[in-house]
Amino acid sequence: MTELDRKDLLGLEGMSAEEIELFLDTTASFKEISERTVKKVPALRGKTIVNLFFEPSTRTRASFELAEKRLSADAVNISKSTSSVVKGESLRDTAENLQAMKIDVIVIRHAASGAPHFLASLLDASVVNAGDGAHEHPTQGLLDIFTLRENLGDLSGRKIVIVGDIAHSRVARSNIFGLVTLGADVTVCGPPTMMPVGIEKLGVTIERNLLRAVEDADAVNLMRIQLERQKVSLFPTLAEYASVYGMNRETLRHMKPECLVMHPGPMNRGVEISQEVADSDRAVILEQVTNGVAVRMATLYLICGGAQREKVLTDEEEVEAPPANREAV
Amino acid sequence: MTELDRKDLLGLEGMSAEEIELFLDTTASFKEISERTVKKVPALRGKTIVNLFFEPSTRTRASFELAEKRLSADAVNISKSTSSVVKGESLRDTAENLQAMKIDVIVIRHAASGAPHFLASLLDASVVNAGDGAHEHPTQGLLDIFTLRENLGDLSGRKIVIVGDIAHSRVARSNIFGLVTLGADVTVCGPPTMMPVGIEKLGVTIERNLLRAVEDADAVNLMRIQLERQKVSLFPTLAEYASVYGMNRETLRHMKPECLVMHPGPMNRGVEISQEVADSDRAVILEQVTNGVAVRMATLYLICGGAQREKVLTDEEEVEAPPANREAV
Amino acid sequence: MTELDRKDLLGLEGMSAEEIELFLDTTASFKEISERTVKKVPALRGKTIVNLFFEPSTRTRASFELAEKRLSADAVNISKSTSSVVKGESLRDTAENLQAMKIDVIVIRHAASGAPHFLASLLDASVVNAGDGAHEHPTQGLLDIFTLRENLGDLSGRKIVIVGDIAHSRVARSNIFGLVTLGADVTVCGPPTMMPVGIEKLGVTIERNLLRAVEDADAVNLMRIQLERQKVSLFPTLAEYASVYGMNRETLRHMKPECLVMHPGPMNRGVEISQEVADSDRAVILEQVTNGVAVRMATLYLICGGAQREKVLTDEEEVEAPPANREAV
Repeated sequence: MTELDRKDLLGLEGMSAEEIELFLDTTASFKEISERTVKKVPALRGKTIVNLFFEPSTRTRASFELAEKRLSADAVNISKSTSSVVKGESLRDTAENLQAMKIDVIVIRHAASGAPHFLASLLDASVVNAGDGAHEHPTQGLLDIFTLRENLGDLSGRKIVIVGDIAHSRVARSNIFGLVTLGADVTVCGPPTMMPVGIEKLGVTIERNLLRAVEDADAVNLMRIQLERQKVSLFPTLAEYASVYGMNRETLRHMKPECLVMHPGPMNRGVEISQEVADSDRAVILEQVTNGVAVRMATLYLICGGAQREKVLTDEEEVEAPPANREAV
Repeated sequence: MTELDRKDLLGLEGMSAEEIELFLDTTASFKEISERTVKKVPALRGKTIVNLFFEPSTRTRASFELAEKRLSADAVNISKSTSSVVKGESLRDTAENLQAMKIDVIVIRHAASGAPHFLASLLDASVVNAGDGAHEHPTQGLLDIFTLRENLGDLSGRKIVIVGDIAHSRVARSNIFGLVTLGADVTVCGPPTMMPVGIEKLGVTIERNLLRAVEDADAVNLMRIQLERQKVSLFPTLAEYASVYGMNRETLRHMKPECLVMHPGPMNRGVEISQEVADSDRAVILEQVTNGVAVRMATLYLICGGAQREKVLTDEEEVEAPPANREAV
Repeated sequence: MTELDRKDLLGLEGMSAEEIELFLDTTASFKEISERTVKKVPALRGKTIVNLFFEPSTRTRASFELAEKRLSADAVNISKSTSSVVKGESLRDTAENLQAMKIDVIVIRHAASGAPHFLASLLDASVVNAGDGAHEHPTQGLLDIFTLRENLGDLSGRKIVIVGDIAHSRVARSNIFGLVTLGADVTVCGPPTMMPVGIEKLGVTIERNLLRAVEDADAVNLMRIQLERQKVSLFPTLAEYASVYGMNRETLRHMKPECLVMHPGPMNRGVEISQEVADSDRAVILEQVTNGVAVRMATLYLICGGAQREKVLTDEEEVEAPPANREAV
């Protein structure tokens, strides 16, 4: 498979192993660009991308924006605080208006699960889901899987443990869909109040005890406790969560020495992850961040037509041409 | 007329038909750029444009920003929430400071009528009014008129009806000035509390009854009810407004089959416009949005010197030259 | 000295006269770029710069952003209101994440003194201090000194008076460090409550009386009263401050006719500076703003390797090269 047969990236659910591997292979080829002195290629020159963020974000928005700029696309940011959302416009009207401005891609983060899918069905423009409610966060899933593959090689039969608030985590869900498709052996571990009913139907094993869960694991991916999202308390105190499900020096001792520690960030140090673990050489947390930019470059490149764009990039006349009848102006 | 003889676009009031047509003709030549695979021309490369928005906006700010990027200008956004306005600096000082940074254009939206005119009189930089209080919104006026001309041809003698809150609408005012100058027959229709005293002096006809107003109309432009601006209630309830001045299936039946329906957005669906009308094939609302980017490209291009810039664009040495005495650094 | 031997610009304290002069000379060579029709050079093409502002700012952020764009760098803005700071992430984690995204420079403004120094010690990326608490604001110090040198020539033995809230002013501190190093004779003047204990150890003269302070001065630099920062009242009323330490027509009469008036902005007109003085021909306040962009261009250029980059800029193949194995995609 050398070309993507879809206009959107909405989630990893239902995506074939071949498709996921196309994303991973393309990411590998884009990763090197960010190591150059001149971190920029003309791949998406003249494309317009809107980052439409209805929830606050530093890292994901910055990661997408860097990816867009390194691909030479034109990026416009719209965030809730400065947008007409205050004027009560519907999401559909906002999106149709952006499309009428002839944009090529909308990168959307929204509190409502399914918001990106709604836009994708409505628009000709490509839609990239940058996190929708507790549903999916596919570029995070891909960057986690890419980081695993870089460190472990083929993921088939590898034991990957996802720890924490599985029920509210779009990161956990995207990881599960992708990893199960690639043949990994996925175990989820967390408090019963944070474990969705029927999660085992996704092909994962449930293990309540953290020390048993991490035994023989090849990687442990710690979900963050989303303090800002919890309306009711799902566990007695943060200290209690940390003592039962937090990863610390004690937990490390029960793991294989080469077992990787991952975290999608931002970390609550001292809650789901202790200082020692966060800063240990098991942690590949900053590698994940580096890979995030490459995954997003690959995603935008594939979504915008990938190899088909080669033609455009050599058509210099078109790139530099003046407005049709500028002479007449 | 092939060149603009003013440095600012502050309003359509007092503009000649020839000038308006220069904007419209230039818009026509720029519209095609946003349809290209590579939506970018080097027309304003190396120009600096500041979008200074003191009121929240999605569509107008995004439309200007896209126009700027497609012209290769450098765009900097300043919005109220992140600016030194919190430190109590005067508008004049903010503007003079921006000019001292050698910017070329300020695009300003401000709650105070006349704020852009004040800046324009003060600065050598060009000023584009992106909406000042209830006064003018000239690029919206131009894009509405451009959309009308694309659909109807010559506007002389055409009946254009503007419905709603005329008194508080800068969009209505810019439309009236431009359309009357181009010889259109403009009718305004709305509740007495929303009709400014003396409006007929602008050369428009007042018609209180919506069904009589839309009879024989070639286009109906629905102003939005600006719920967020109303300090006192200008009508009993939204439902009452909708039933008397809202456009719905019933109103459509009283109109000529080819009569256009326009709206500057964001729409209050169910208030000034019903779902059926908003989504009907009479509506050219998304065409307006598309034309908005082209109007803003044309405006910035003309304001920055238009055809005079051709010289600059072929002077490649200047574009790529290093700092004067970089060797010495 | 033709090259900078440090990766960061954190403050002027401890910087040698030779280093300061390197910044000033480089600024002189960059100033001309903003006067061109095409205000853009490819010096930092493909470099990524993050403007990380934890305090609101119009002028400093805009000045840096313009400098970055005129150098063709890719700039990403992160401000407190839209960032994950709301999710409780530590400054260290935010910074390490940005670095993992392979950015080249962080421009940081932070309420905590020393925040930029902390990041600089942690990161390989360059750090530019855009104001840290009441500590330093080195690019403001450099632009003030550059403006002085442009107007007065060699600063050795020149009398420069800094008036106002010395204790809370990072601008005052950066000016003092730089000016004393260059051999200027610096006098500070302000209310006792705003005068830090031991300030004379920095090599300055204290003079309580404004009229005596400005006598024989070559330049007077007025610090702003930071109304938004004061938790307790440091003087009875604004009117009293203005009458004793504000500069007005009366003060002007006690100054040499050619004495310059400076202010870092934003001005509180009528408090530390009267309308007449702000708008008089003694004031070089807008020159300071113009020089600010040039100082920031020079700073970013030097920090990113300065003359070493020449090699990169002629390596066109690298600039335009496609992703390593794009053929394989």
